[in-house]
Amino acid sequence: MNIKDRRWVILGAGGFIGTNLCQRLVQHGANVVAFGRRASFPEALEGCTWVSGDFLNQADLATALEGAEVVVHAVGTVTPAKSNEFPITDIEENLIGTLRLINLCIEKGVQRLIVLSSGGTVYGSDAPVPTSEDAANDPLCSYGIVKLAVEKYLAVYRRQGLLDSVVLRVANPFGPYQLLKGQGLIAAAMQKILIGQPFEIWGDGTVTRDYIYIDDVVDAILAAAKLTDASAPRLYNIGSGVGRSINSVIASITEIHGRFDIIRQLGRTVDVPVSVLDIQRARHFLGWHPCTEWETGLRLSYRWYQENSLARR
Amino acid sequence: MNIKDRRWVILGAGGFIGTNLCQRLVQHGANVVAFGRRASFPEALEGCTWVSGDFLNQADLATALEGAEVVVHAVGTVTPAKSNEFPITDIEENLIGTLRLINLCIEKGVQRLIVLSSGGTVYGSDAPVPTSEDAANDPLCSYGIVKLAVEKYLAVYRRQGLLDSVVLRVANPFGPYQLLKGQGLIAAAMQKILIGQPFEIWGDGTVTRDYIYIDDVVDAILAAAKLTDASAPRLYNIGSGVGRSINSVIASITEIHGRFDIIRQLGRTVDVPVSVLDIQRARHFLGWHPCTEWETGLRLSYRWYQENSLARR
Repeated sequence: MNIKDRRWVILGAGGFIGTNLCQRLVQHGANVVAFGRRASFPEALEGCTWVSGDFLNQADLATALEGAEVVVHAVGTVTPAKSNEFPITDIEENLIGTLRLINLCIEKGVQRLIVLSSGGTVYGSDAPVPTSEDAANDPLCSYGIVKLAVEKYLAVYRRQGLLDSVVLRVANPFGPYQLLKGQGLIAAAMQKILIGQPFEIWGDGTVTRDYIYIDDVVDAILAAAKLTDASAPRLYNIGSGVGRSINSVIASITEIHGRFDIIRQLGRTVDVPVSVLDIQRARHFLGWHPCTEWETGLRLSYRWYQENSLARR
Repeated sequence: MNIKDRRWVILGAGGFIGTNLCQRLVQHGANVVAFGRRASFPEALEGCTWVSGDFLNQADLATALEGAEVVVHAVGTVTPAKSNEFPITDIEENLIGTLRLINLCIEKGVQRLIVLSSGGTVYGSDAPVPTSEDAANDPLCSYGIVKLAVEKYLAVYRRQGLLDSVVLRVANPFGPYQLLKGQGLIAAAMQKILIGQPFEIWGDGTVTRDYIYIDDVVDAILAAAKLTDASAPRLYNIGSGVGRSINSVIASITEIHGRFDIIRQLGRTVDVPVSVLDIQRARHFLGWHPCTEWETGLRLSYRWYQENSLARR
């Protein structure tokens, strides 16, 4: 599949990953329907057809999917940290909601559904590092369980030949358009320190994650759309493959910004201590690899928060 | 935990496994609340306190759980074969229903929740045979996905110290009180042939399953209730460990009953070709093993259908 001549529908287009994806697709000259409840940065979606609606409203979703060829599902209604407080809501919205989406995609003849899953929550504490897609799944939170169940349903529908899909287990993305919403260490840190507030961290700062710059995630989504090998796997880890502790991320940000204040809080039980993804499968089958240097991604993000985020307060 | 002095609540007590479990508990002198919508064989539940109610009704469930110490969850509202037609119903009833049960168990201070999962549907087609608990999970149907998600939620609640639980991934149980309801090859065959009807099988008869006599399943549930080692795994395969094809089961039944007519139908996509469980973990940690010889279990079942089931038509 090529990118340009397709009708893309991006669900969750007003959010962090959705906004970045839409921008890139427009640059490629694709026909893009951007669907969401509201866009934090509507000007960033210029060139897309904005369709305002709720992912949980069937009529809204059906309207957005009219004529869709490639659909990207980047909607999430809960965060990992909050998901254990509201597991039933998580299931109702994100699992049943996605099943309804699958049914609509089948009905509308969608060629491929690309779903963003979670590299950081589906594996669990005892996974080998770096973690390959075949590792055992022992999620510590509802968020990860729901993502996993979505993946399994997609596999059932693929096996039945009802809907082609690709799942991307994305690690910890960062970059422009990521706001302070409970996910995203770098976004949270940069936004806090740029307004001179102290930055709160959970635990002793040794919690280690696989941070990936958003442009590389967008590259992976495009590669998933272009995948033509019918026998290729349909589930990929998308990360940098490199682990960085909170403390080392703070050190990197300090190099850019200078010193800032930190408040340390008790660790959260939904956090696995280390999450670093093995990305060999995506390299091999998607021909994809992360291109952005760590410092480059961090500086681009910092500049974006300086120029954009602060003006909105 | 001993069996006798506990207050047991059996959910799904009117069904196949529930009825057999209640009978055994009464024999042991346990205090048993038998909860279900209706009992197919009410006389079999003599000695229990029957509480009529719907698993999906919170008030009914709360009444049944009053004072519960050990709870066994043997309710299922869909069959594997039908589950892919109604995945959202499956999720709403069996996944969200079980989460509501978990919340009630926490609220009522239940000491241990024992949940029956499915050895035949959680693994998938490519699992090594016999299949250990650590094998990959690639369910072919919603039924298996929901069971898996329930297992993952139970693990989250255990990790948080909120509720102790044990999951038994039961293979293909057979024996008295199993009726013709879409599950159970042996039940279906015996009931059909005893009324002189032909027996329909799916596929070429090579589909292989791990059939376990119900008394052995009940033994495993009691062993799960007695488990005291806090560091022991909380998830066990419960099967015979022996694979038998449909054709070989039919041959065994023919030895008991004499020849009968068979109608062969096309295979179902939700069926994995071979499912045989590795039961080493349960042997080791539960001190459990299946005791009933294949022919013995089959003859006991056959006699039961002769004496009981036919009289109900």
